[in-house]
Amino acid sequence: MKRVMIIVSYDGTNYCGWQIQQNGLSIEEVLNKKLSQLLNEDIRVIGVSRTDSGVHALGNVAVFDTNAMMPADKISFAMNVRLPDDIKIQKSREVPRNFHPRHVKSYKIYEYKIWNHTFLEPTKRFYSLFCYIPLDVKQMRKAAAYMVGKHDFKSFCSKKADIVDTVREIYSIDIRKEGNMISILVKGNGFLYNMIRIMVGTLMKVGMNAYEPEHVIEIIEAKNRKAAGPTARPEGLTLVEIGFENVEEKKIW
Amino acid sequence: MKRVMIIVSYDGTNYCGWQIQQNGLSIEEVLNKKLSQLLNEDIRVIGVSRTDSGVHALGNVAVFDTNAMMPADKISFAMNVRLPDDIKIQKSREVPRNFHPRHVKSYKIYEYKIWNHTFLEPTKRFYSLFCYIPLDVKQMRKAAAYMVGKHDFKSFCSKKADIVDTVREIYSIDIRKEGNMISILVKGNGFLYNMIRIMVGTLMKVGMNAYEPEHVIEIIEAKNRKAAGPTARPEGLTLVEIGFENVEEKKIW
Repeated sequence: MKRVMIIVSYDGTNYCGWQIQQNGLSIEEVLNKKLSQLLNEDIRVIGVSRTDSGVHALGNVAVFDTNAMMPADKISFAMNVRLPDDIKIQKSREVPRNFHPRHVKSYKIYEYKIWNHTFLEPTKRFYSLFCYIPLDVKQMRKAAAYMVGKHDFKSFCSKKADIVDTVREIYSIDIRKEGNMISILVKGNGFLYNMIRIMVGTLMKVGMNAYEPEHVIEIIEAKNRKAAGPTARPEGLTLVEIGFENVEEKKIW
Repeated sequence: MKRVMIIVSYDGTNYCGWQIQQNGLSIEEVLNKKLSQLLNEDIRVIGVSRTDSGVHALGNVAVFDTNAMMPADKISFAMNVRLPDDIKIQKSREVPRNFHPRHVKSYKIYEYKIWNHTFLEPTKRFYSLFCYIPLDVKQMRKAAAYMVGKHDFKSFCSKKADIVDTVREIYSIDIRKEGNMISILVKGNGFLYNMIRIMVGTLMKVGMNAYEPEHVIEIIEAKNRKAAGPTARPEGLTLVEIGFENVEEKKIW
């Protein structure tokens, strides 16, 4: 028996998200099915980030256990032949048997893209949020600075989530604008349900001059979902990378 | 009766190309149908560029005649409500009755994108060509320089095309690389059937060191489709812009 880690990339457009659902096809379900076929045993992956319906990933991470003889680093190639075009495995590798990616200290990087123009180019419709109101990026950067650090992000958590500890640490928020595309890159040690999308919805309110940047302080202090801005749509969001601490020491990756 | 010009953007993934076909849905067919419904008369658009199946456009151009009272510049808004998400009109405007976009001197700008990496990110699969062999961009730029200018491009024309005059002028070819994405921007006064895709297929052969850059001279001189490289796949290609000469004088746009 060995434990294998995979880095998974997907176009989330046609899926109901990572997690197995009754009402649609999920990334997890496709991976379980295709891995089980390939390795000829019942495989259940454990994913690190349960991305929402329509959200994309460049580097989500999952682990699974297998008795198969196939070398772990060859599994990605064998799987990519079987997987549909919108899900691919970037890399596969053996990790220590006791390695659990949700119990190890890690960071995640998400990118949220906003197409800020009066006209939405059709090829961008599944990969960015369309916002025709001009956004003031400088004001958004000021507001984002108040989100960086260790805070109780309860105001930025969907009420549907049943989480006790809502304290998380945001390491950085980098907002760039190239042409009409605004990119918001967020790095943190963990994120609550819908947290990035509510952060982006709040930053957009600032960009539209509906909130002052300083209002973010009050929103955090309120610890109430109603205090923050709306949940930005899923299509703009991509899980870029998940990194694990002390990776070299543990020889995990 | 007035003549209206429209700038059309589309994601070509789900269409059989611009031109009406028996075996699939075309951009032209959707525009004719939706314009006829909106203006309550039989509308037939005349497109400038008949893009292939899977090819995208940011700014293709078409004209049509109508007796409708609706101001020409309002047609884009009324149409965009009716059009599917993958076809949108960027702008609509009245032009002189005798203006025919195929008979006026014009330039076209196309962009071809190549994802040059061992791993294809699923979100890029419909909007770039996947090439896992590393391409030498410097060699490609040298080869492209031989294509610029006025030449008989018969070697770069699909044999399916029935064209007598195969002389065209390429104004510029600009090859950039950002991260793993290679972008080839081509500006010219007109293009033969599959010309850009054969040019790109030839440049890729140079980038793989299968051809020397100077071999392009021989390919042009051969005036034979068999002399050039393969036709690169359609998904990497976007028609970016069509411009008309003396636009301000004629007050066309």
